[in-house]
Amino acid sequence: MTSSHHSLDPIFRPRSIAIVGASRKKGSIGREILHNLMEYEFNGKIFPVNPSAEVIHSIKCFPNVSSIPDVVDLAVIVVPKHQVLEIVDECGRRGIRGLVVITAGFKEVGPEGQTLEEQLRRKIRQYGIRMIGPNCMGLINTDLLVRENCTFSPTEALTGNVGFMSQSGALGVAILNIARKINLGFSYFVSMGNKTDVSGNDLLEYWEHDPRTQIILMYLESFGNPRKFTQIARRISRQKPILVVKSGRTSQGARAASSHTGAMAGMDIAIDALLEQCGVIRVNTVEELFDVAIGFSNNPIPRGSRVAILTNAGGPAIMATDACVSAGLIMAEFSETTRKHLQDYLPPEASILNPVDMIASANKDSYAFCLDVILKDEGVDAVIVTFVPPIMINPIDIVQSIERIRKNHGKPVLGVIMARDEFFDEVNEVAPDHLPLYLFPESAARTLSAMVRYARWRARPHSEVVSFKVDRERAAELFSAAKASGRDQLSLVESMEVLRAYGIPVAKYALAKNRADALNAARAIGFPLVLKVVSSKLTHKSDFGGVIVDLRTEQELDAAFDKLERQLSAAGLTQNLEGYLLQEMVRGGKEVILGMTLDPHYGPLLMFGLGGIFVETIKDVVFRITPITQLESHEMIRNIRGFPLLEGVRGDPSVALDLLAECLQRLSQLVGDFQEIEEIDVNPFSASTLRQNSKALDARIRISRGTT
Amino acid sequence: MTSSHHSLDPIFRPRSIAIVGASRKKGSIGREILHNLMEYEFNGKIFPVNPSAEVIHSIKCFPNVSSIPDVVDLAVIVVPKHQVLEIVDECGRRGIRGLVVITAGFKEVGPEGQTLEEQLRRKIRQYGIRMIGPNCMGLINTDLLVRENCTFSPTEALTGNVGFMSQSGALGVAILNIARKINLGFSYFVSMGNKTDVSGNDLLEYWEHDPRTQIILMYLESFGNPRKFTQIARRISRQKPILVVKSGRTSQGARAASSHTGAMAGMDIAIDALLEQCGVIRVNTVEELFDVAIGFSNNPIPRGSRVAILTNAGGPAIMATDACVSAGLIMAEFSETTRKHLQDYLPPEASILNPVDMIASANKDSYAFCLDVILKDEGVDAVIVTFVPPIMINPIDIVQSIERIRKNHGKPVLGVIMARDEFFDEVNEVAPDHLPLYLFPESAARTLSAMVRYARWRARPHSEVVSFKVDRERAAELFSAAKASGRDQLSLVESMEVLRAYGIPVAKYALAKNRADALNAARAIGFPLVLKVVSSKLTHKSDFGGVIVDLRTEQELDAAFDKLERQLSAAGLTQNLEGYLLQEMVRGGKEVILGMTLDPHYGPLLMFGLGGIFVETIKDVVFRITPITQLESHEMIRNIRGFPLLEGVRGDPSVALDLLAECLQRLSQLVGDFQEIEEIDVNPFSASTLRQNSKALDARIRISRGTT
Repeated sequence: MTSSHHSLDPIFRPRSIAIVGASRKKGSIGREILHNLMEYEFNGKIFPVNPSAEVIHSIKCFPNVSSIPDVVDLAVIVVPKHQVLEIVDECGRRGIRGLVVITAGFKEVGPEGQTLEEQLRRKIRQYGIRMIGPNCMGLINTDLLVRENCTFSPTEALTGNVGFMSQSGALGVAILNIARKINLGFSYFVSMGNKTDVSGNDLLEYWEHDPRTQIILMYLESFGNPRKFTQIARRISRQKPILVVKSGRTSQGARAASSHTGAMAGMDIAIDALLEQCGVIRVNTVEELFDVAIGFSNNPIPRGSRVAILTNAGGPAIMATDACVSAGLIMAEFSETTRKHLQDYLPPEASILNPVDMIASANKDSYAFCLDVILKDEGVDAVIVTFVPPIMINPIDIVQSIERIRKNHGKPVLGVIMARDEFFDEVNEVAPDHLPLYLFPESAARTLSAMVRYARWRARPHSEVVSFKVDRERAAELFSAAKASGRDQLSLVESMEVLRAYGIPVAKYALAKNRADALNAARAIGFPLVLKVVSSKLTHKSDFGGVIVDLRTEQELDAAFDKLERQLSAAGLTQNLEGYLLQEMVRGGKEVILGMTLDPHYGPLLMFGLGGIFVETIKDVVFRITPITQLESHEMIRNIRGFPLLEGVRGDPSVALDLLAECLQRLSQLVGDFQEIEEIDVNPFSASTLRQNSKALDARIRISRGTT
Repeated sequence: MTSSHHSLDPIFRPRSIAIVGASRKKGSIGREILHNLMEYEFNGKIFPVNPSAEVIHSIKCFPNVSSIPDVVDLAVIVVPKHQVLEIVDECGRRGIRGLVVITAGFKEVGPEGQTLEEQLRRKIRQYGIRMIGPNCMGLINTDLLVRENCTFSPTEALTGNVGFMSQSGALGVAILNIARKINLGFSYFVSMGNKTDVSGNDLLEYWEHDPRTQIILMYLESFGNPRKFTQIARRISRQKPILVVKSGRTSQGARAASSHTGAMAGMDIAIDALLEQCGVIRVNTVEELFDVAIGFSNNPIPRGSRVAILTNAGGPAIMATDACVSAGLIMAEFSETTRKHLQDYLPPEASILNPVDMIASANKDSYAFCLDVILKDEGVDAVIVTFVPPIMINPIDIVQSIERIRKNHGKPVLGVIMARDEFFDEVNEVAPDHLPLYLFPESAARTLSAMVRYARWRARPHSEVVSFKVDRERAAELFSAAKASGRDQLSLVESMEVLRAYGIPVAKYALAKNRADALNAARAIGFPLVLKVVSSKLTHKSDFGGVIVDLRTEQELDAAFDKLERQLSAAGLTQNLEGYLLQEMVRGGKEVILGMTLDPHYGPLLMFGLGGIFVETIKDVVFRITPITQLESHEMIRNIRGFPLLEGVRGDPSVALDLLAECLQRLSQLVGDFQEIEEIDVNPFSASTLRQNSKALDARIRISRGTT
C-alpha cells in the first residue's frame, strides 16, 4: 500500500497538514489537535491556519489556506459550521485532496444541518476531495513513517496491528484510554463521524491489503451500505478477523411487519446471523470488543476448541472451567505422557487433570514447566493460565516465564492474573509484547471462544451457490399478472404456482368456484383432502374457521360446505369470497416454515424454522442473507434448536433434509431472480421422511407494485 | 446485635486477639496479619504468640497462648498444619471461644488432610469453640467499635453496608482491590475457607438482623446445606438483597440421570430457578457481582421498570438503550409537562424524548435541571445518566451536580461516566457517597435490571402452600407393596394409582392378562382406546412399537394384538411381558410434563414443561423446590417459553391452567408426604380446554428401596 497511491492516502499518509481553525487557547480543539500532531512527531509539515494569529504553539501561523506556500495534502477543519463550506472551497481551489472535518452541527442536529451536510457532500465530490467526518474526533495513523495524530484526545494510541473505526466520536477518548491500559496497539484509529464521504466500507477496503493491520475493530451504529458491507466483510474476514460492536440493536424491534418472516427478522438475532455468515465476530459491548481484540492481537489462531487450564488456585480455575464450557469450548483430555510428566513434577496435593492446579506454592519454574508440557500435548489447542499472586511471588516473573514458553508453540495462550492495578501498568512497561492478560477468567474464556469460532469459520470448506433449472418465465408471468391487476399480494394459487415453477414441491390442489365445481375437483385430487376459503381479505384463515381438514368422503365435503357457508355469512365475509381451494391432505410430516423478507437495510433475508404455531411461540428460526450456498442451506436447517425433531428422536426417522436444503436454495434463486419480491411465507411446509411426500401446504408471496 | 451475645461474637467482635504464629518476617502471613490489625486500629488488645521471639512489630510477644495474662476472645492461627490441633487444645483449655484458622493443608489436599480436618472439627465442637476456616484468608469487620482486620491482604476494606463472604480465599486480594477501586464499602468481609464449622448459612443468620449490613454478597463454590440455605435466603431476601456468584456451574451437567426430569435438572438453569425462588439475585461473574452491589448500596429500590436515560452524547445513549431493552427494562414515556420543561430549557438540537440527549454543550446546570425534571415525572422509575467528558467540562462537577438533585427524589439513579481512570480515583476522594458509577452503559443497565427484578420479588403477594384432601393411606400402601417385592420402580398402574390417590386425574384404564381379558376391558372403558404393553424392562415403550393408539373397534383391537405379538417375539421380549394395559384415548389435549427429581444437593425439585418429544428437543422446562405455593405453581406454568401454546394462540382457547397448577401443588404435597420418592415423570399429561378432559396418560414413579 505504501507504494501504490490510493485516494485515501492524502488523509492517512499526508506529507503536510493544515489545521484550519488552529488556536492558542489551551483546552480548545484547535489547539489540542495541533499539540497532538507535534507531540506525536508527525513526519511531515504542519501549517496552523488562523486569520487572527501569527504564531501558534511556536509555529508560524497562516491567515488562510491559500497563503500557505507549500503543497498541502490534508486539511483538518475545526472552524464553526457556517464557515465550513467556504473553507472547503478554498481547500479545493488550493488542490488539497484530503479533509478531516471535526466541526459538528450537520445531519446529527436536524433538517437544517442535513441540508448543510448535503451541500458539503456535493462540494467535496465536485473537487474530488476525500473526507472523514464531519462531526468526528479525528484520526491516528501510528505508522512510524507517518505518525499522524489529528485527534484532540489526551491519550495517545500505542502502535500495534489493530485497525479501529468508531461511528461515535464521543466514545473516542474513553476507548483510547482503555486501549492504553490493556496494552492494545493500533495501526489506525479513525473516528468516522457522519460518514458523509469516507465510509466504513472504504476503510475496510483500505485496510484489506495493509500489512500493518491484522485485526479490524468496528464500533457501528448503522450500516451505510450493508449489502456492500457483507460482500466486503465476507472476503476480508477470510484473511483478517473483523470484530464489530453493532449498537442500536433493539430499535428495529418496533418495526411493523405483516408476515411471520418479517416479524422474526426484526429481531436482533437476524443481524447476528448475517454477521456470522460474513465471518464477522459480533460482540455486545465495547468492553468485550477489547477483550477479544487483545486475544487475537498477540496470538495465533487456534486449531480447535480443546482448552487446558493451568492455575495456582482452585477458585479461578472453577470459574474459568464454567466460563469455557458455557462458551462452547471443550475441556482437553491430556495424554498419558502429559499426565505422567505433570505427576512427576508437581507435589502430590496438586491436580494433574484439567484444570491443572499446581497449588499456591507454584513459582515461575512450575508455570514454565507445566505450560510447556501442556502445550506439547496434541490434544490441547489452547491454554488459559490463571494466577492469583501469593504474597511472596511477583506476577511479573510469572508472565515472563509464560512468555519464554509460549513463543515456542504455535498455540494461543491467554492469561488471567487476579492482581492489583499496579501490576497491569508495570507489566506493560516491562514486557510490552506479553500475552493477553485479563483480570477475570470469564473474559479469557469468552475471548478464546470467539477465536475458536473465527478459526472454524476460516476452516469451513468452500461451497458454491448452485443454480437450478427453473421455469423463470412462468414465475415472471405470474408476477406481471398480479402487477397488471394492481395487486401486491399474490393469491394462494399464484404463490403455489411460483413455487412450483422454481421446483419447490407443493401439495396437489384445485380451485373451485362453487360446491359443484368442488365435488368434481375432489374426485380429481382424491380423498382425503382439505377445503380452504380463497380470499385476499383473510390473512390467517384458521382464525375464521376458513380451513377444514381431513375430509374423507363426498358426504363429508358436502357437510363441510354447509358449515363453511354458515360461518362466512355469520362473519359477514361472503362478499370477499373468491372461491374455494381443494388440496390433498398431507399427513405425518413435520411442519416447517421457509420464508424470505426484504430487510430495508440488509436486502433479502431467507428464513428457516419450525412451522405452524411454533413460529410465533417458540421463535426457533434462522436467517441468512442471499444468495445462500449449498453448505449454508444445510447450516440453516441444522442451526435451529428444534433440529433434533427433524433429524428424528427415539428412532423416529429423519425427514428428507436434503430436500429441505434444496428448497431453501431454490427459494434463494427465486429471490435473486426477482428483485420485486418483498415477502415469502411458505408456512407450513410439510417435511416428510420421504422426499416425494414433502410439500408446501400454504404459501404467500408479496411483491412491490412499483418495480418491473 | 451489639447488645445480645451471639456465639459468633468472639470471632467478629473480639475484645482481644492472639496471633498464633506471628512473625517478624516481612511478607510472611504471620507478620502481615499482625500489621493489618494494627494499621486498621483494632479497638482491642493484640497478643502475638511465637515461642522464638520476645517482641514482634514493637509488641510484646508470648511463647504460647497459655502465657497471655489477659482474657483472649479470638485466636488467629497461622502455624504449620501439624501444629494446629495442639494449638486448638491450648486455646480450648485457655477458654478462647473464637478461632480463625488461616493454615491450609486440610480436606482441599486429599484424604490425609480430610482426616486432619475431621479431627479439628471434633476438637472445636468438644471445646464449644466457633471457627472460620481452615484454609482461609481471614476476615474484616469495619465497625468503628471493632475495626478488626485479620487478613493478610495489602488492600484495606472501605466501610459500608455490604456483607461479603467468599468460599475462595484466592480471590480475596483481587476482590478487595476491585471493591476499593469502585468505592464499595463493607460491613464484613469474610473468607470462609473450608467451612468446617461456621457456614455461609451461619453468616447469613448473623447478618440478618445486623443494621450495618444492608446487602449480602456471596461467592460460592458449593452449598453446604442447600435446603437450609433456601429457607434462610427466602426469609432474609425479603428484607435485604442477597447477591450470589455460584461457581462450578457446569460440572453438574455430567451427572447421569435415568428420567427426563432428572436429566433436565442437571442443567444449571435449575439452580437459577431455585435461587430465583428464594429471591436471591444470581450473577454470573465477580465483575457483575460488584456492578450490581454498588447499584444497591447507594440507591433506593426502584418502584417499577420504566427507565429514563439522560446523556450529553448519542453513542453511549444508544448503547444504554440497547442494554436496557435487552435486560427487560422499559423505556419510560415522558409526560406532557416533562417534555415541555425539557423543550423550553434545552437547545433546539437536543432530543427531549427518551433518551434525553442534551448534546455536547451540556454543563453541570443542564444535568441538574434535566435530571430534576425527569425524576419528577411519575412515569419514570429510575434514571441512567451518561456523560462523555468534553475537553472543557470536569466530570467531577457533573457528579456533584447529580448528587444534589438525586438526594431529593426516592428513585435510583445510576451514572455512566466514560472518563479516564484518574477521574474514578478522584471522585471517590471528593464525593465518597456518590451514586454508583460505571465505565460502560451495559453495566448500569444490567445492574438496574437486577434491582428491578429484586423489587418485583419483594412486591410479590404473599401466597400459601395449600393442603389438599388426599388418600395418603392408599399411596402408602402402594409404596409399601413395591418395597415389599423389592422393587424401586412402581409399575405404570401403581404409578397411576398413586396419582389418583393424590387427586391428579388419570386416563381411564384397565389391565388385561391376555387377549380375551382385553376385549372385556375394552368394552368397559369404551372405544377409541390405546393398547400398551406392560413391562418393567421397556423404558421408552414407543421405541419398540409397544404402544398402539386410536383403536376404534373390537376388530382393530384384535388386529393390534396380532401385530404386537409379532413385534414382541421378533424382539425377543415375550418373556418380560407382564400384561397389557388398555387406556381411554384422550384427544385434542396439549401434552405437558409434570415431574419431580430428588436432587442430591437441593432436595426434591418439581418440574413443569412441554411434554412428549419436546421435553428432549426444546428443553422448555421450569423447576421449583418444594413445597410450592399456589402462586409458584402458576408461575411455573407461565414461565415456560411455550406458555402461549397452552394459553392459546390465534383464538385457540386456553387449556385448563388452574387444573395444571393444582396438579403441580398436589404433586408437591405427594413429594412432601413421602421422602422415599426419588423420581416422578408424568409424561405426557394431556392438558385440555376442559378441566374434566385433562388427564395423565403415562406415569413413572421411582422410590428408594432403603427408606421406610
